[in-house]
Amino acid sequence: MAELLKGKPVGDLLDETTKIKVTMLKAKGITPTLAILRVGERQDDLSYERGATKRCEKNGVAVVNKILPDTCSQEELMTAIKELNEDDNVHGILMFRPLPKTLDEKAACNAILPSKDVDGITQGSMAYIYSGQGDGYAPCTSQAVMEILKFYGIDPKGKKATVVGRSLVIGKPVSMLLMNANATVTICHSRTENMEEVTQNADIVVAALGKAEMLGREYFKEGQTVIDVGINYSEEKQKLVGDVKLDEAEGVVSGITPVPGGVGSVTTAVLVSHVVEAAQKSAL
Amino acid sequence: MAELLKGKPVGDLLDETTKIKVTMLKAKGITPTLAILRVGERQDDLSYERGATKRCEKNGVAVVNKILPDTCSQEELMTAIKELNEDDNVHGILMFRPLPKTLDEKAACNAILPSKDVDGITQGSMAYIYSGQGDGYAPCTSQAVMEILKFYGIDPKGKKATVVGRSLVIGKPVSMLLMNANATVTICHSRTENMEEVTQNADIVVAALGKAEMLGREYFKEGQTVIDVGINYSEEKQKLVGDVKLDEAEGVVSGITPVPGGVGSVTTAVLVSHVVEAAQKSAL
Repeated sequence: MAELLKGKPVGDLLDETTKIKVTMLKAKGITPTLAILRVGERQDDLSYERGATKRCEKNGVAVVNKILPDTCSQEELMTAIKELNEDDNVHGILMFRPLPKTLDEKAACNAILPSKDVDGITQGSMAYIYSGQGDGYAPCTSQAVMEILKFYGIDPKGKKATVVGRSLVIGKPVSMLLMNANATVTICHSRTENMEEVTQNADIVVAALGKAEMLGREYFKEGQTVIDVGINYSEEKQKLVGDVKLDEAEGVVSGITPVPGGVGSVTTAVLVSHVVEAAQKSAL
Repeated sequence: MAELLKGKPVGDLLDETTKIKVTMLKAKGITPTLAILRVGERQDDLSYERGATKRCEKNGVAVVNKILPDTCSQEELMTAIKELNEDDNVHGILMFRPLPKTLDEKAACNAILPSKDVDGITQGSMAYIYSGQGDGYAPCTSQAVMEILKFYGIDPKGKKATVVGRSLVIGKPVSMLLMNANATVTICHSRTENMEEVTQNADIVVAALGKAEMLGREYFKEGQTVIDVGINYSEEKQKLVGDVKLDEAEGVVSGITPVPGGVGSVTTAVLVSHVVEAAQKSAL
């Protein structure tokens, strides 16, 4: 049976590093601060906000909440972003998406300073992830994948990594991060033919399709590491499931992240580490 | 023997489309104009400038030359870029690199408006290539690869494409363009193990290492299309050669671009097409 690559110890270790940095920053009079910008009252947003706030508190990182009604105007939203950009006491900005359809989401994203863009949603962060130049951060989930590999001693260097999915939130950035870590990366998507062959050919498979239990036994082979980024609600099973059929894959591969309890539980720890990194940079 | 995928007819056909667009723009009183910004008198730059100028002239595209001495200050360079950005009669800007080491090249690149960045060197263009959002252009050479595939009827959709090289000038952008065209893309580099196996596994191989005749017969198999982006001077052969051993590969694969006379001869045609596209957008 595959080793279950649980996220909790990965997040806990990230928190240990974060706490040390926070102590050092506070000794300099700096309290790392995350601004959470929420428009409306979506359940998903509220749930993530609770998790992120709890993780910040645990690590001594302050949270500033900026809440706008879902009837707010573009101008009100842009003003809120501008104020957070200009506030030297705010080091990171997390803006929940999707925004209400009455608002211009792209304009709002790109108004955030890349140096405060701790979840990697601005054009500046995208250029940074792609080129390695400029300011910005990788989306937290994509970096959570890398933290899990690192924690469990799986060095991507020289290995073949197949990423299933090419979204801007996870597929593309995690491909770039794996390539930066010297993996030979293949990116699969809906138009890929014989995908089983492509995933079987890899040492590391990152599943990021966002489709419940799409990848069964036939996609995997012995010795592989599988990182399942999907978090989907299965009506049939009445519970959260990943993009991978865990019960089938774990009989074949060497290691796999569970859902829930895998990548998702590392994401907020990465978010908080980004806020602290931004605070460190602002102190330079 | 492999079909030689020559660049000339590809560039010629691009020029035909360009000429029609130029005629339409001139009827509206707009002369598409490329500004060439050169610092110093490097032979490579002068040679490319001659080729680009000739291609512009052939297509009715105007060229403005802005030449600075290699002793110029950063301020003088930035002022020149600002003037070209603000000049509504200039639609595209081509700045030669590398700049003299006394100058901050990154700052200069990023000062160019992405909407005029016809060779894709700004952070804005990089974010555009990566995300498909915002303004910008792909580096001309990377798009030249796509134009060759299109001309010779090779649709990347559903095919496996292996790109050898991960530079910002060619490897990364051509990987993104191939992925946008629905290929399943694998990116190889210096840390890739068993590269022969990875290239042999592809339907399309793009060689962009910048190392003379690195890829011999063992990297290829029957039926493949090979696009050789390398342009290297071989001391031994006293002539230009690609990254692929042409004489070895052409006995195996189905189609291959020659060097010289392949990708290189499409690049300036793409450049001119970008200038015309920028002029069209400015007229909207």
